[in-house]
Amino acid sequence: MKEKIAVIGGGSWGTALAVVLNNNGYNVYLRDISEKRVKEINEEHVNSYLSGIELPKELIATTSLEEAVKGAKAVVVVVPSHIVRTVSKELKGLLDKDTVIVTASKGIEEESHLRMSEVIKEELDDKFSDKIVALSGPSHAEEVILNHPTTVVVANKNKELAQQVQNMFMSDSFRVYTNPDIIGVELGGAVKNIIAIAAGISDGLDFGDNALAALITRGITEIKRLGVAMGAESVTFSGLTGLGDLIVTCASEHSRNRRLGFKIGSGKSLEEALSEMEMVAEGVRTAKAVYNLSHKLDIEMPIVDQMYKILFENKDPKLVVSDLMLRGAKYEIESIAMEKEW
Amino acid sequence: MKEKIAVIGGGSWGTALAVVLNNNGYNVYLRDISEKRVKEINEEHVNSYLSGIELPKELIATTSLEEAVKGAKAVVVVVPSHIVRTVSKELKGLLDKDTVIVTASKGIEEESHLRMSEVIKEELDDKFSDKIVALSGPSHAEEVILNHPTTVVVANKNKELAQQVQNMFMSDSFRVYTNPDIIGVELGGAVKNIIAIAAGISDGLDFGDNALAALITRGITEIKRLGVAMGAESVTFSGLTGLGDLIVTCASEHSRNRRLGFKIGSGKSLEEALSEMEMVAEGVRTAKAVYNLSHKLDIEMPIVDQMYKILFENKDPKLVVSDLMLRGAKYEIESIAMEKEW
Repeated sequence: MKEKIAVIGGGSWGTALAVVLNNNGYNVYLRDISEKRVKEINEEHVNSYLSGIELPKELIATTSLEEAVKGAKAVVVVVPSHIVRTVSKELKGLLDKDTVIVTASKGIEEESHLRMSEVIKEELDDKFSDKIVALSGPSHAEEVILNHPTTVVVANKNKELAQQVQNMFMSDSFRVYTNPDIIGVELGGAVKNIIAIAAGISDGLDFGDNALAALITRGITEIKRLGVAMGAESVTFSGLTGLGDLIVTCASEHSRNRRLGFKIGSGKSLEEALSEMEMVAEGVRTAKAVYNLSHKLDIEMPIVDQMYKILFENKDPKLVVSDLMLRGAKYEIESIAMEKEW
Repeated sequence: MKEKIAVIGGGSWGTALAVVLNNNGYNVYLRDISEKRVKEINEEHVNSYLSGIELPKELIATTSLEEAVKGAKAVVVVVPSHIVRTVSKELKGLLDKDTVIVTASKGIEEESHLRMSEVIKEELDDKFSDKIVALSGPSHAEEVILNHPTTVVVANKNKELAQQVQNMFMSDSFRVYTNPDIIGVELGGAVKNIIAIAAGISDGLDFGDNALAALITRGITEIKRLGVAMGAESVTFSGLTGLGDLIVTCASEHSRNRRLGFKIGSGKSLEEALSEMEMVAEGVRTAKAVYNLSHKLDIEMPIVDQMYKILFENKDPKLVVSDLMLRGAKYEIESIAMEKEW
């Protein structure tokens, strides 16, 4: 008898994770609110978010949250970040007491500034408080389903729990590492979407690879600055869920946030750009949350500041990259210059 | 009366730096050993390494090292790394006593394992020992000439000297930062070429963005490990000349080392791949030097080890990426796991 796992959210990433679990021998229920999507997964074994990719026939899609999670050993939450609280409320009372919760949603809640695992924790019964594991890393859904080599991280300070989730997902082409630093892992995955919009804008303005590399390099530095202030480990941001995810998101055509930025860099307004996109670009909401959060905490995040101005104050993107380039700094690494009294 | 600067080496990067200096108002002499190249620069204002790009008419090319450097305020060395020693020997005796030397060549000398500034220092008179500045960063030559925003770093422990070179190159689109850590700056620029070959191999095998992001993330970690053992500052490798340069080299079609790797990943031997390339792929020589150096110093560099095996021991590239993916590590960040007794 196969063990059951529920995946909540039939977007491209949820579907990819469902396929990984299916291939690892689990009985996977994929829950999506769209009847159309559930039907195409069950009857045609495809998902229109993942064009041209055939899904395993064993995968069971359902619109019923109760059917999906009943008796499941683990519940993987992969809905857009602004839906996580609603879904968590609905999950309360449906879960077995031993169920493990995995969050693969990436974002910071807009008003509360909470990470996704914190949002889930607030809504579920207390007995689940220590059983929420974050999964993140550089991983385009399409490539995962096609068995291209992919590395991700699962994070929870409870080592045995992290290892349990590691074993659940691990395969030859999908390598899973553990990290106790859930704060760093979740923040890296969320904030990178803002830098990805900036990368898209730079490309939309035809600024080229040199500017892109500078944006990514500066971007990870400011993500790290925020993360350390919030209690994360600095070194996590140099790893797969920080730098690795930032690179894949900024450099790749697959990323929605980068595509959104590209449209804006090419002269479209935020409304026009968003109206042309079928899927959610998490970075827009995250930009607002992180902008407010960084100002509250008094953390310098120049790229986030400029993205906020473009997205919500109609600043001309052309001015932004040059403003970032012309910033006052003269030393590359302030910390070295200061330490050596240079 | 314009001040004179000599650029030694009329490859794509040398030519781009000559254009930057020309646009900043210097009288620039570009020295190349090829009479054909000197002629095309002087008469047609083009360089066949930079197809479709028009060069400023004021740029003076010459095959004569003496003509190029006589009375020059600065000499910029941008020849392939294995030529740097020869050129430095020839420079000895031709330089004014106040001349500043800038090295933009990237590599580690094969037998001596010396950085380029160290090679130059060995060959010039002692009075130049403290006057060698390294210039490095994420910078495709084509984009620099087209005034796309670019950021680079100049490094020397003498702050005034670094600032002098910073002022020489700085413009609105070419931003120059200073960093006292010349060891880190030179190592980052040299070793990244090995990781770029690995990135090309991964792409040649059609492994996709997830694998590429993992390679870059792991790559900078092992470069940092070597660098710190050699006396560099860890933080330099997270900056423009480390991570930034690694990203631009691994993700971009422009990079020769990546192109070489791509050919190898697509099934060609090193000889076949090299014979198809007009320009030097620095990473091959650097791979040998860094492989030997890391084993001498007992520094773990798994990607460099595997690249050496592919390039010099005919190991099948297909086996290498899976060997790297399947490595034993289970924790993402060993340092966190150890520190927290996790």
